[in-house]
Amino acid sequence: MTQALPTALPDLASLRQQVGAALTGFLDAKERAAPGIELLHLTTTLRGLLTGGKRLRSLLCLYGWQAAGATGDMAGAVRAAASLELFQVFALVHDDVMDDSDVRRGRPSAHRALATAYTDGGGPDSRARAHGLGAAVLLGDLALVWSDELLRAAGLGPERLAQVLPLVAEMRSEVMYGQLLDLQSTGRVSGDVDTALHVIRYKTAKYTIERPLHIGAAVAGAAPPVLDACTAFGIPLGEAFQLRDDLLGVFGDPARTGKSVLDDLREERPPS
Amino acid sequence: MTQALPTALPDLASLRQQVGAALTGFLDAKERAAPGIELLHLTTTLRGLLTGGKRLRSLLCLYGWQAAGATGDMAGAVRAAASLELFQVFALVHDDVMDDSDVRRGRPSAHRALATAYTDGGGPDSRARAHGLGAAVLLGDLALVWSDELLRAAGLGPERLAQVLPLVAEMRSEVMYGQLLDLQSTGRVSGDVDTALHVIRYKTAKYTIERPLHIGAAVAGAAPPVLDACTAFGIPLGEAFQLRDDLLGVFGDPARTGKSVLDDLREERPPS
Repeated sequence: MTQALPTALPDLASLRQQVGAALTGFLDAKERAAPGIELLHLTTTLRGLLTGGKRLRSLLCLYGWQAAGATGDMAGAVRAAASLELFQVFALVHDDVMDDSDVRRGRPSAHRALATAYTDGGGPDSRARAHGLGAAVLLGDLALVWSDELLRAAGLGPERLAQVLPLVAEMRSEVMYGQLLDLQSTGRVSGDVDTALHVIRYKTAKYTIERPLHIGAAVAGAAPPVLDACTAFGIPLGEAFQLRDDLLGVFGDPARTGKSVLDDLREERPPS
Repeated sequence: MTQALPTALPDLASLRQQVGAALTGFLDAKERAAPGIELLHLTTTLRGLLTGGKRLRSLLCLYGWQAAGATGDMAGAVRAAASLELFQVFALVHDDVMDDSDVRRGRPSAHRALATAYTDGGGPDSRARAHGLGAAVLLGDLALVWSDELLRAAGLGPERLAQVLPLVAEMRSEVMYGQLLDLQSTGRVSGDVDTALHVIRYKTAKYTIERPLHIGAAVAGAAPPVLDACTAFGIPLGEAFQLRDDLLGVFGDPARTGKSVLDDLREERPPS
């Protein structure tokens, strides 16, 4: 009996390009299937948000897939990975609404961009602001349910899907729990390092690193020890990543980091 | 070969009670599994919102299930039906955020209630308002993903689930498309009856009546003609329901309808 060799991943640029193509194809189909042109108001903004990122989660998902010894065609894994990028846009857009942030990935945040689009480029008045907020909530909702649809379009069989979906459900709950902790501590800064690290663990370490690795590994049918290894690797890396990101958010160069230095401090947001 | 008799549904009060028990059991489990007590801030509000409704969608889902000749135990169908109530809370909470509505089902809307809870009952200042808005966006997000989890906990086999999930995806897209139409026409009232009816079709006729019937029928493994019959029955009923609801929203008694007479008119929202 010969064993299939694990699939070797192409370089990062090629992986990013494949994830991007999966997202573009998905959104093209959504626009074609829409009952009217109104949807373009949201998908145009969504495409912009999907362009700016590092694709960290989808890349980690594909590395998790490889780490679990995946063999064969990677098209399904690419779709599953791309679904994490849609989920991330959901999380960012709603996060920016909650924090009333002006800037995201070096561009206006979604609710600001949608307010501006509403007034055709004129200065946003209060009605345009309200429209931008509502449209951004809706854009986030769409990105969330589309993330789900793209994952289901990955063509995983029922058995594999039953392995992947509970991990996706965990990821979603963890992100929302982290968001809740964040929201409850905003404006009530305590200087309590344990609380800040607790938020970091939920909002970033698990979400940005551990779960994408887990989901990719599960797409490849990984056994529990592989998931445990992903955790041991992912959690400390995620904590370090977020702490560095927070330092850059306060002391970094806004032109390079793409985020306002003052937003977090002005809102008395805890360091996470 | 003997054919199993279709399951006879109990009375409405009993159906409502079973749906309520499925929701309560689900939320109890979520609270027990939460990493901290912070979640109670949201689940308390969520339970309140789930208490006030007519359970229209879950009842129609169970009637669709029966109409398709379902046999045997109805526990799975009840969970699938209950998942529509969580989805509905998601839609209401985000809708109220988008419209900045004060009242829902005779109580303060979620973002108002969460703002008040934040200040421990004191008058909401601007920070409490911002908190209420953020927490309501998050509450809606949670209700949406939990709706998904409750449906998956219905124990439908992979084949049945593959029949149900595309209908759920359609329902979600339609609701969001209707919401988008609504948002784009707010403040730009045209008196155009076609546009208003278009919004009604997406926001209500399909979502409130047709899709719950479809989903229930699919849980029972219905063939396409059964779904078509649900459509022929559901769409005109849904349009009539929404037109009446809009009239009550303007000319009805707020003490009986549980909604402010002025909200829609003040915001120049179209009649839907």
